[in-house]
Amino acid sequence: MKEIELIGKRAKDASRKLAVLGTNDKNSALEEMASLLKSSEDKIMKANERDIKKAKGKKRSSSFLDRLTITSAGFKGMVDSILRISELPDPVGEVIKMWKRPNGLEIRKVRVPIGVIGIIYEARPNVSVDAGCLCIKSGNCVILRGGADAINSNLALVDVLNKAAVSAGIPGGSLQLVENTSHAAVDALLRLDKYVALIIPRGGENLIRAVTERSTIPVIKHYKGICHVYVDSSADLKIAREVCFNAKVQRPGVCNAMETMLVHKKVAKRFLKPMLDRFKSAGVEIRGCPETRKIVPRAGRAAEKDWGTEYLDLVLSVKVVSNIEEAIEHINTYGSSHSDAIITTGLDSAKKFSNEVDSACVYVNASTRFTDGGEFGFGAEMGISTDKFHARGPMGLEELTTYKYVVYGNGQIRQ
Amino acid sequence: MKEIELIGKRAKDASRKLAVLGTNDKNSALEEMASLLKSSEDKIMKANERDIKKAKGKKRSSSFLDRLTITSAGFKGMVDSILRISELPDPVGEVIKMWKRPNGLEIRKVRVPIGVIGIIYEARPNVSVDAGCLCIKSGNCVILRGGADAINSNLALVDVLNKAAVSAGIPGGSLQLVENTSHAAVDALLRLDKYVALIIPRGGENLIRAVTERSTIPVIKHYKGICHVYVDSSADLKIAREVCFNAKVQRPGVCNAMETMLVHKKVAKRFLKPMLDRFKSAGVEIRGCPETRKIVPRAGRAAEKDWGTEYLDLVLSVKVVSNIEEAIEHINTYGSSHSDAIITTGLDSAKKFSNEVDSACVYVNASTRFTDGGEFGFGAEMGISTDKFHARGPMGLEELTTYKYVVYGNGQIRQ
Repeated sequence: MKEIELIGKRAKDASRKLAVLGTNDKNSALEEMASLLKSSEDKIMKANERDIKKAKGKKRSSSFLDRLTITSAGFKGMVDSILRISELPDPVGEVIKMWKRPNGLEIRKVRVPIGVIGIIYEARPNVSVDAGCLCIKSGNCVILRGGADAINSNLALVDVLNKAAVSAGIPGGSLQLVENTSHAAVDALLRLDKYVALIIPRGGENLIRAVTERSTIPVIKHYKGICHVYVDSSADLKIAREVCFNAKVQRPGVCNAMETMLVHKKVAKRFLKPMLDRFKSAGVEIRGCPETRKIVPRAGRAAEKDWGTEYLDLVLSVKVVSNIEEAIEHINTYGSSHSDAIITTGLDSAKKFSNEVDSACVYVNASTRFTDGGEFGFGAEMGISTDKFHARGPMGLEELTTYKYVVYGNGQIRQ
Repeated sequence: MKEIELIGKRAKDASRKLAVLGTNDKNSALEEMASLLKSSEDKIMKANERDIKKAKGKKRSSSFLDRLTITSAGFKGMVDSILRISELPDPVGEVIKMWKRPNGLEIRKVRVPIGVIGIIYEARPNVSVDAGCLCIKSGNCVILRGGADAINSNLALVDVLNKAAVSAGIPGGSLQLVENTSHAAVDALLRLDKYVALIIPRGGENLIRAVTERSTIPVIKHYKGICHVYVDSSADLKIAREVCFNAKVQRPGVCNAMETMLVHKKVAKRFLKPMLDRFKSAGVEIRGCPETRKIVPRAGRAAEKDWGTEYLDLVLSVKVVSNIEEAIEHINTYGSSHSDAIITTGLDSAKKFSNEVDSACVYVNASTRFTDGGEFGFGAEMGISTDKFHARGPMGLEELTTYKYVVYGNGQIRQ
């Protein structure tokens, strides 16, 4: 597809210049972008209203409309997020390691931008701003391809951001939106491995799976978050109760919320009764294993498929296990390698759990809800990776870079 | 394919145990493996002779037979390489970073094994030993799939290594050879993403391309090495002559040898005449641009396709450029992002070149031939990556690991 090819080539050309742009230049461009965006509120809101009107005509669900709508607070959030990104340290140019060889060669492992990043997302216009600006800050050119339902909002946002960026010295082509909202355009982008170095899909599991299957470009992704909290026999049950409640109830619709609670049989009776009462008052539906239902008979029955389900809702699977080995085995079998926690006072249990659970983030005595770029102190988040390659767990600016080796010598030749 | 599925499952099961095995346990197993291999020389040599006899019957080329043959020195080299790997520091468990959040959470970024690695290679039996032992040392289970022509050698080698490994406490299934030498077996392995986390192909460009196209598992690879040396206007011409000669002639058949020499027009006349004379006495065929041929008329003519050709032989493309920008543009257009060098006395040129050349290894005043795990001080090498993801440049033990976040708290919940 000619138009996508041209977008790719423009981005690749721009990426050479953007990669070597100084930190101050990038930061002042981001400030300009925030400022022009702020003064373009009317224009953006009008474009967003057109999208909302069309989506309502198509009888989209209320949660869909929710994600599509830019509220006044949401707009302010977008502007603020650009300013926050401009204040973060620039990862580019960091010397990750440096050493000298016996022959005098000085080897530096230096952090550099990846190149051109393609972001594929659904109808959340704020992704255009957040993801776009994170890429610019990390020296990467970005090709945005948002959902068809948000096209007017995205066109307006990218137009404003681009005007400010280019007038502030960011190379043209650094920030582009694919205006063609057909599936064929996505497919063409996913095969543009000549120009695009990385694809990051953001959205539901179906979108991510489709992108991964079709892409000839590396994809960093997370399919789902089936997160566990395991309450060990030696757990401080007060901590266990607070962490489990927080992990399930504080925000059940997100990927780092708990979906399955595992409880050691020794503490099951003492822990489960009051815990499930508390969940009940919070409106949480329980699906328990036979042991759980012996202790709390009113609990529902967990089917095999419950252990592998991401509810994203006030539903919780509960299983009583005989020992820590069974808990680890359960997590490594049914989990999604995202975030899992143990509540324990035993050092051996803490070590065993954190060594053997094969997940991006393993917690000891804390809620799984902390898996988040902001909570980790990264200042911003591009997403969370459950992959093992390149980036694992929360992805901030650093995870949008790669490295190169720069070697200084004074005439060394190989013997 | 049932048998490949079973190999994958066995490896995945073993990987949980191998990942948490202590450094001393892994090292003493490697020592046992070296010792049993050493005392099995006769058996290995007989198996290798059967392969050689069959390959001769098939009229394989002499360079093919060369790679297939285990010489007595080569055998000693295999044993030594295991001992060297046992002496290297264990990358697993290293705390890459650690920080504390304001709420008291202690976040550790810890180095962990990748899991199961598949190695696909041609008729070089030493890869079974080197790659296999590097994987074990880094806590990864390995599935080896060598070429059909080396099957007897590989069977004998892996049998010996496995006996020693298992008797020394390495979990069974950590080191497996695919005995089925059909293409269907490779295809099945490349789709085993349920169990295998990474594929590393080792061999010619055709093998690597075929593996990459068919694999549903991440592949780390390097297609080719089209390496450049650029002689800047401010170059110390004595250094330039030694480095260029070394980069081309010392071992022309390897990926980090120079294939194209770029020369600034200001020094072209002074540099090229004696340099091309020296190359001529070493038997190097020159293919030059029109400017080069004005200076040295006997030089051959470079066609467009020469700039993108990896000769792996005593052939060199030569181009005179007007400035450093043209040199960088040429390298980023025709190069393979492997290793490129500048010879200069100017600090600005050195910085510009190392910033803007988009290659895994960029050299200032040194030969491209240093791109090598051993020369970088990694102690061993699994290969070289021209990819930008996960690993770039020489890959040692560290590049065979990923990381996880281990977070300790004392009951923190998300507000």
